[in-house]
Amino acid sequence: MPDSLKTMISELSKRIGKEKILTEPEELYAYSLDASTEFKRPPAAVVRASNEEDVKAVLELADKHKVPVVPRGSGTSLSGGAVPAVPHALILDLSMMNRIEVHIDDGYVMAEAGATVLEVDKVCREYGFFFPPDPASSRIATIGGALAENSGGVRGAKFGVMKNWILAMEVILPGGRKLRIGEPVYKWRWGPDLMSLFIGSEGTLGVITKAWLKIYPLPEKVVRILGMFDRIEDAGKAISQIRRRGYVPMALELLDRETIEIVKESLGYSVEVAEGMVIADIDGPRESVWRIAGEVENVMKESGGRTRASDDPKEMEQLYLARQGAYPAVTRAYPAVLLEDITLPLSKLMEGLRELDKMRKEYGLKMPVFGHAGDGNLHPCICFDPRDEEQLRKAREMFVKIGQLSIRLGGAVSGEHGIGLAKKEIFLEEIKAVRGEGYIETARMIKQVLDPNGIMNPGKIFL
Amino acid sequence: MPDSLKTMISELSKRIGKEKILTEPEELYAYSLDASTEFKRPPAAVVRASNEEDVKAVLELADKHKVPVVPRGSGTSLSGGAVPAVPHALILDLSMMNRIEVHIDDGYVMAEAGATVLEVDKVCREYGFFFPPDPASSRIATIGGALAENSGGVRGAKFGVMKNWILAMEVILPGGRKLRIGEPVYKWRWGPDLMSLFIGSEGTLGVITKAWLKIYPLPEKVVRILGMFDRIEDAGKAISQIRRRGYVPMALELLDRETIEIVKESLGYSVEVAEGMVIADIDGPRESVWRIAGEVENVMKESGGRTRASDDPKEMEQLYLARQGAYPAVTRAYPAVLLEDITLPLSKLMEGLRELDKMRKEYGLKMPVFGHAGDGNLHPCICFDPRDEEQLRKAREMFVKIGQLSIRLGGAVSGEHGIGLAKKEIFLEEIKAVRGEGYIETARMIKQVLDPNGIMNPGKIFL
Repeated sequence: MPDSLKTMISELSKRIGKEKILTEPEELYAYSLDASTEFKRPPAAVVRASNEEDVKAVLELADKHKVPVVPRGSGTSLSGGAVPAVPHALILDLSMMNRIEVHIDDGYVMAEAGATVLEVDKVCREYGFFFPPDPASSRIATIGGALAENSGGVRGAKFGVMKNWILAMEVILPGGRKLRIGEPVYKWRWGPDLMSLFIGSEGTLGVITKAWLKIYPLPEKVVRILGMFDRIEDAGKAISQIRRRGYVPMALELLDRETIEIVKESLGYSVEVAEGMVIADIDGPRESVWRIAGEVENVMKESGGRTRASDDPKEMEQLYLARQGAYPAVTRAYPAVLLEDITLPLSKLMEGLRELDKMRKEYGLKMPVFGHAGDGNLHPCICFDPRDEEQLRKAREMFVKIGQLSIRLGGAVSGEHGIGLAKKEIFLEEIKAVRGEGYIETARMIKQVLDPNGIMNPGKIFL
Repeated sequence: MPDSLKTMISELSKRIGKEKILTEPEELYAYSLDASTEFKRPPAAVVRASNEEDVKAVLELADKHKVPVVPRGSGTSLSGGAVPAVPHALILDLSMMNRIEVHIDDGYVMAEAGATVLEVDKVCREYGFFFPPDPASSRIATIGGALAENSGGVRGAKFGVMKNWILAMEVILPGGRKLRIGEPVYKWRWGPDLMSLFIGSEGTLGVITKAWLKIYPLPEKVVRILGMFDRIEDAGKAISQIRRRGYVPMALELLDRETIEIVKESLGYSVEVAEGMVIADIDGPRESVWRIAGEVENVMKESGGRTRASDDPKEMEQLYLARQGAYPAVTRAYPAVLLEDITLPLSKLMEGLRELDKMRKEYGLKMPVFGHAGDGNLHPCICFDPRDEEQLRKAREMFVKIGQLSIRLGGAVSGEHGIGLAKKEIFLEEIKAVRGEGYIETARMIKQVLDPNGIMNPGKIFL
């Protein structure tokens, strides 16, 4: 441990109490990974903040002693966001700051950074409302992390991502200054929108401590449609056409044959296999939802799909089994997975899916493809054995090529998982392709202003 | 004209042609006001840009010669956004850059800054889609201006404001550098979100030249409900209750007696008068929309309202007459109007409306109140004769007190019109009340980075 960190910890103990500071190797080990599992670097210390004063103390002293700070919720980042990129870093664990206040009459929930996304969703369901963003890890993913990563989820096809659901925010900046941004009302004008600057910043600018989040009334009724396709590109076509004809399903998911097979084999679920599977959740008022669902079924049929539909909760669960099990099955079946997260323009879904299939055959590695295709976001999973050098090499090459495919088709290398450590290089290719270099330069200048000593999650994204 | 500006114009003429540069007083006069009408300062010159190169040339040379630049679309700002705050400024008129490209298959419209909001809406209606934000001035308001002001409109109750409808953007920064931000897909992650920084920046950071805008399918059917109330606070209660019970009307508007009376007297419209009028547009699928509208009518009735509803286009227009005519009637009836734009928490609507009524009686000035109450946004119009010093004094005092009321009730002094010149002082009170001073400091540091010579719309907001 460098002297600067030692001094900082000693000063910090006096301020917040040493019971909140972890420095034993066995305690730190759990903090050396996040859900990406690809990156591993234990921090030199962990502070478990229980209130705003703790966060202020950490950011004041870390700034003074130039100690790198990595904010962390539950570590569900899939791009290495919660793993230090540099040695001797301090992890600031916000998961204990999890207070929630429901303000139904004003249409929002106030949540501290460590509250889970699911808990925010749950507390307003009692009143007939819900919180739309639903990252797959929402049972443990925290509001602070989800905002810092601008997380999406299955309901993103209709409801967008975290940045669409925030009214106001509190942030602690390096040095310990508190930044309150906005009002908990549905419209406010404060000049340049500094709130969004922190959304997607992956902990590189400051620490989000509190957020006022919009909520939305629960749909009256949901019908789930399952479409099975003999060709993966037909499934892609169905999805493009559903959006093109003006339907906005709450969820519009795609799975390919490899995904379904792995779920079947690895989890033993009883699911029908086809080249492509599309799942659409149609929400709407009770008199209309079945008619609209029927129209969406017809669009699927026109693209060659065989469909089933249900509004029975048990049967709906059954229809969702393959999607539910997709990522868990993949991680169980293979020793290692590189999880992709590209977004394609909706009109390029068919072409993208064909190209992915070609690539998989060319490399001879398993690569189940699934994702939130309704907003163009796909998660190809490159499966490999890291002990096999040839497989490792191939997997890494595919990871780059998939990113390049999204760039070539006019999409983005990351839709919702972030850049973090995982996509630093390929993201620079995207930026270059659209002549976005000025973005990096500008973001770096802003970083310099907010975090002059560069203590916030250094080495991430391009910061 | 100072020498710096003279030199700049001479260099600029060589670069972009002198026919794009206006310097004659009679040409400049039209640029000395915007829709706020309150502020008047002619610019020293106007450049009518017809392409990106023109904008780059202006921002390069203005930066070199430290000439203040005020970007302008159609000048529909209601807070002085398009009027120079300083002498010897150059107005950069973007209204000629109005190219639009429709990409229905990918769910967006690409629009240059000078395209009107209505034109963007119109081009996608042919395909069954629309562009939700609808500032009252959308026939002439430009996309660039609407983004720089983060404009709202009637449909904001359901669809939010401009920032909710943008996918990607191009900006020219002082010095002439071009900043491309994001991809025209529904999800992308580029680290800190620089795009939103320019939304609401009111032209103080750079010039938005191009935007990729999300579109949304047209609703199948709309039913308009008119509710008449004997007490203004009952109308407020109805609105809070509609939201509280989980209805999200496309429009949820409020008018008070003074507004209706002025429309009747000044425009001669045949409208029924009551203490409060609520207009709700319920959109939905054809089988359900009337049942839902009936439920919303019942909520109004529970709060004491008498309701009428229609889905007949002609009758719907009739029901909307009072709202349609509100602002035009007010500006026609009185020599001068100070237009307010506060947002209140939904639970405080009743209290806010009562307080506004008390204030109006206390000061003895006419003050029709109407607005997008469904998202808490109210537009009290303080009417006065500016030649009468006593009235002028009272009007200004009321303007401040209404802002203070919104602050006291936990709302915002501006919902959608912006700070500009009109709300600089009262905005500082809001900031102080919520301990948001760090916001100003931080925004100023970011301004310094993006615009080190301070040429972008100086003297606006707090920048």
